[in-house]
Order: sequence, then structure tokens, then C-alpha cells
Amino acid sequence: MTTADEAKGAATALPPVHVIGTGLIGTSIGLALTAVGVDVSLEDQSETSAALARDLGAGRISGEVAPGVVVVAAPPDVSPRLVLRALERWPDAVVTDVASVKQVVLADVSRAGVPIDRYVGSHPMAGRERSGAISARGDLFTGRAWVLCPHPGSDPAATELVAAVARATGAAVTTLSPAEHDAAVAAVSHVPQVAASLVAARLEHLSDEAVGLAGQGVRDVTRIAASDPGLWTQILSGNALAVADVLRSVRDDLGELVAALEALGADEDDVADAPGARAVLARAIADGNAGHARIPGKHGAPPATYAVVSVVVDDRPGEVARLLTDIGDAGVNMEDLRLDHGLGLPFGLAEVSVLPAAAGPLTEALTTRGWQLHS
Amino acid sequence: MTTADEAKGAATALPPVHVIGTGLIGTSIGLALTAVGVDVSLEDQSETSAALARDLGAGRISGEVAPGVVVVAAPPDVSPRLVLRALERWPDAVVTDVASVKQVVLADVSRAGVPIDRYVGSHPMAGRERSGAISARGDLFTGRAWVLCPHPGSDPAATELVAAVARATGAAVTTLSPAEHDAAVAAVSHVPQVAASLVAARLEHLSDEAVGLAGQGVRDVTRIAASDPGLWTQILSGNALAVADVLRSVRDDLGELVAALEALGADEDDVADAPGARAVLARAIADGNAGHARIPGKHGAPPATYAVVSVVVDDRPGEVARLLTDIGDAGVNMEDLRLDHGLGLPFGLAEVSVLPAAAGPLTEALTTRGWQLHS
Repeated sequence: MTTADEAKGAATALPPVHVIGTGLIGTSIGLALTAVGVDVSLEDQSETSAALARDLGAGRISGEVAPGVVVVAAPPDVSPRLVLRALERWPDAVVTDVASVKQVVLADVSRAGVPIDRYVGSHPMAGRERSGAISARGDLFTGRAWVLCPHPGSDPAATELVAAVARATGAAVTTLSPAEHDAAVAAVSHVPQVAASLVAARLEHLSDEAVGLAGQGVRDVTRIAASDPGLWTQILSGNALAVADVLRSVRDDLGELVAALEALGADEDDVADAPGARAVLARAIADGNAGHARIPGKHGAPPATYAVVSVVVDDRPGEVARLLTDIGDAGVNMEDLRLDHGLGLPFGLAEVSVLPAAAGPLTEALTTRGWQLHS
Repeated sequence: MTTADEAKGAATALPPVHVIGTGLIGTSIGLALTAVGVDVSLEDQSETSAALARDLGAGRISGEVAPGVVVVAAPPDVSPRLVLRALERWPDAVVTDVASVKQVVLADVSRAGVPIDRYVGSHPMAGRERSGAISARGDLFTGRAWVLCPHPGSDPAATELVAAVARATGAAVTTLSPAEHDAAVAAVSHVPQVAASLVAARLEHLSDEAVGLAGQGVRDVTRIAASDPGLWTQILSGNALAVADVLRSVRDDLGELVAALEALGADEDDVADAPGARAVLARAIADGNAGHARIPGKHGAPPATYAVVSVVVDDRPGEVARLLTDIGDAGVNMEDLRLDHGLGLPFGLAEVSVLPAAAGPLTEALTTRGWQLHS
């Protein structure tokens, strides 16, 4: 794959990297960097954990070579202390941490009153549901975002070196201030999790017949509601104020909507009298349209509107493959695919997203090959 | 396909059906029933619209034959009047309406004080973004739920006849009281829409770099935020009180979460002092787990936990097809498939859901065939 070649190219100029903390993220960083030829050394408060990471191939234990970059891969509450100690131990090294919140860590590091130009916080946006070195994967960061959060005093050369390390793992680098980072992950990750959980919680006490009406919409909205409560309590606690900021505005919007719906419900015999209430509903949906349109499309390109071709697919092995072979034979590049399972029926719908110009030719090609299309 | 055979079997005993209102839903019902041999007659306040539906093959215009079933396919505000008129015009016919809210329609029909044992409200849960007879499709209801909402005075034979009509269109019939129906669609459809819109609205004013961090989670949660504001203002207004009931409880949960996060944020130097606040977060996520687990799995079966095998797929025509052919050749039945596009990279991840017992053999088969698996 060209990806591995690119990562190797990015790694050629890298100095030795020292990883402190051999949990899931630290060990995965070691595996990814070792794979592209970087000299990685490992350290953990648990010697057993560090030895396991070494045995998995994430790097060596002894640190005879002074590192050029130190990566602190520890929880947010211990990261500042480990960053300060690394700056002191290796006076020529660049130091980064990979904690999932950045303002709190920077504030604690700054408070020590020592020069921190060689410190650049960062956050690789990758994880797994399992933790520990044993769950580490060298490809954990492939194609994921790795956010750099330099502070005003960060040396640009230090920032560039951390970026090179991130790229060497296969990640896509992006740069935000610590405050922007915390607000961004609140909006794009933490608040969606809360919303999914709250909507899903409303399903708990419905009858079987009622939840049986669940379609693709609620399934999509609540998919991440299956997440681990312990893990998410840590994540939300760590970014508490930024998450609270966004949730307050959601709560205010919700309050307006409830008032509008109550006005419309009280006035059900003559809803024409409640134009203001209907405007509140329409504006909420329209604001959602505008926000949704901001989410980048495939490959970070501007969002595209795809045409969807829906095809009835029998529920047996190989049928979806046969469909996609026919799509490939038609020379059409599929942008997205969803399988929507029917209710109580032995088949499903495959919703194939393609560029609008490809929808006509695809429809014709599939009909010719005997597929039943569905509106 | 066996599906068409089953629908034809269900249709053999059906009496003539009269459809009042030849918009999207009414015309689609006419097309579906005509296709399985039912004698369908059509009526609309616009003669042009009725003639178009006839020309599309949805049925005939003249009504020499007295219908056994009358389907009122009109907006909620005019449906009660049309139902009452149909009960009077055809004293032996069963009458249903297909409006998307059921309590309001039943209340208005009941208020007339005439016998309504031949009336059974219903709601086919299918639609399209476009409206009108010209957008109608005979397969609009295939595999979708069609909810029957009999009232305490409905004749069981009338309910069974409406169920037979619904099944003849290819829909899966389920039965709820009008109040249960309205509460159910509020929870499984209307509230998820509101949540998706409110979460998406928070993205509108983020920087490009910040929205660039959007991963699959927020994409899933906000997918339906692209919905039409005009249509959704009508839908939410029509079910205002049931939606307000559910949203009030969401708002209350949200208020508790904001207070907990503010307490944790104020106390960031010693979060160990805020166990109550962390318990609020953990309970919200756990309640979401419980609600999420209620959503039925494939084919209305109890929810299953699938194992996910993630595969790196190059972004060019035919690659996903090649993967799925290999999955089919391995004899594994895929339960679900998602394509997750990397950020700024020329490939994506295919997340293949399979029964847990199939994950090991599938991983082995794909690795053998040269696919790169991803955690």
C-alpha cells in the first residue's frame, strides 16, 4: 500500500522517540513508529507493562540513546507532572502529551514557571473499547486525526517535530489551540454521545411493539449509545466545562421547542393561530441543516450531496457481494453503502450513495441485471 | 421473489378498495394493491390529480362497485371529515385513514356522535422526500411497518380487513392504541429528529479545522439533521403534545448533566470530591445503554451483539465488491456493513458486522486473501 510507503518516508528523518506510558495509546504509538524504522524506547511505572509492550514489538526498554522526542501517554491528571519531568530529564528533547483534553494539561504545565517552549500538547483521535498494551495495534492511528495544540510559547520547530511523529504513525495532522481543541471535541464527540444516550434512554420503557417501529433514523442517532459508561464518565469529566458550555445551549434550544410544542398542542383546534410556535420548530430544523452541511465529506473534501439508489437484497451470503460486483462492473464508484434491514422480512435494502451524475447509469445497469430497485 | 407471491396470496380475498386522496401515499397504495390484483378506485378533490394517479396505473376513477374498504389518504386536519363522510356514503364498508398522528383524528371522528365500529385508524410508516402522485411507487411499503390503531369500539373483523389491505402492499403489520402510537413515534422518530438537529446546529459556527475532527459518531447522530424544515414543522406540530412529553424528560436529564459537569469543572483540582456528579454522568450513559438494547435487531429478532471486523479498503471502483465476494466465499453472512472514510486519505475502512462466532473464521479468511485488517 502507498500509505505505508508514505509513513516510512515521513519517518526517515525522525530522531529516537521515548514513550512514557505503555497502555493502549503509548504501545500503539511504539508499534506504529517501530514499524516505519524509528528507534523507540519505552517506560512505564509498571515494569511488567513496559516489558509486555517491548515483547509485542513496540520498542526497547533501555534508554542509552537520548531521545529527540518524548511522548507522554498517560491520563490527563498525571500527564502534567510527567511532561515537566521529561523537559527536565532531556534538556534537548521536544515533549508532547496525548491526553484527550488540552487546556487543563497546559494550565498545569505552565503553572510550574519553567520554560516550556519545547512542550507541544497533542491528541490522537483514536481509541479502542479495550485498554492496555495487549490491545495495542500498530495501525490504530491510520487515517485518524491527530490534533496538535501548540501554545503561544511553543517553538515552531518543536511543533513541526511532533507533527512528523504523528504523520509517521499514519495519522492526518491538524492544528488547533488548546481551547479550540476542547470546544471542538465537546461539539463533535462529547455532546453527540450525550444526545445519543439521552434519546436512547427514552426507549427503555416502551412496549415491544413501540420499539419495533424503530427505523434507520433512530438507529443512527442512538448507535453510539451502546458506549461504556465508565470510559465516558472519565471523558466527560475531563472536558467538563467545554461540554457544559455546549450542552447549555442545547438545553436552551430544547426549552424553546418544548414551549412551542405545548403552545401548538394546547391550540390544536386552530393551529393557524400559532405561527410563532411553528417558526421556532422550523428554525430548529433549519439550523440543524446548516450545521450538518459543515461536516466535511469524504477525504476532507467539501460536503457533497450524493444520490441514493436503493436495491432490494435477499438475506443470504453473497447477495450483497453480487450487487457490489455488478456496481463495480458498471464502472460506478460507490461513495457510501448502508444496509437497512426490513421489519420481519427475509430481505433488506442496500442504499448505495453515488455522485448524482452516476445515479441514472447505475439505475439502468442494475435494472438490466435483474435487481429490484426501491424508492 | 417470494415476497410478491406472499402479497398476492394476501390479496386474493380482498374486496374492492376505494382510495380518497391521490397524493404520494394514496397513489402508492393504489399502485401496490393494483399490482397484486385488487380492484382499486380513486378519488381526489383535484380531478387532475386523480386522473394522473389513474394514468400511472393506481386504479380506476369511476366507482360503480361499492368498496369493501375505504382508505382516506389525506392530511390529519381534513382526515376526520373524510372518514365520517365515507362511513355515511358506504354503510357496509370498513374505513381507515393513514394520517401520521392518530389521537387527534380519532378524537375528531368520535366527536360526531355516530357509530364508528367500522373505522380503524392506521399509519403506514413510509414516505419519500418528494410528494404528489408523480412520486408514488408501488413498492413504497415493502418491508415497512404499517401500524393499526383500533379504538375500543372497532369491530375486530374491520381491523382484520385493514390489516389484510396493509399486508397486501408488502408492509409488516403491527398494532398499537392511538395513544401508544403517538407516544411511540414521538420517541422513535420525532425526538431523534429534534436531537439530531440540535446537535448539528452546534457545528454551524465551528472552524473548518474543528469540524474536520468529525468522526463516524457525530456523522451518525446528525445524519437526519439534513431533513426538510417545512415537512418536519408539520410532523412535529401534528404530534405536539406527545413530542413535548418526551422532550421535557430529555430537557430534565440535560439539566442534571449540565449541573454535574459544572460541579466537576469548578472542582478540577480535586475531582475525587465530586463522586455524586460523576454518578450522574455514568447513569446517563448506562440508561442510554439500556434503551439502545431495546431496539430490535435484524428481522424484528431480539437485539444481537455483533462482532465487527474492520478492513482497509482502497478507494476505487470494485474494491468493496471484491471484499464482499471474499466474505461470501468464506461462507459468512454479513449482518451489517459500514464504510468509514478516512480523513484526507485515499482509502476507507469497511466495518463488517457478523455473529460473534463468525469473527474468527472471517478474520482468518480475509487475512489469508491479503486484506489488511484494522482495529
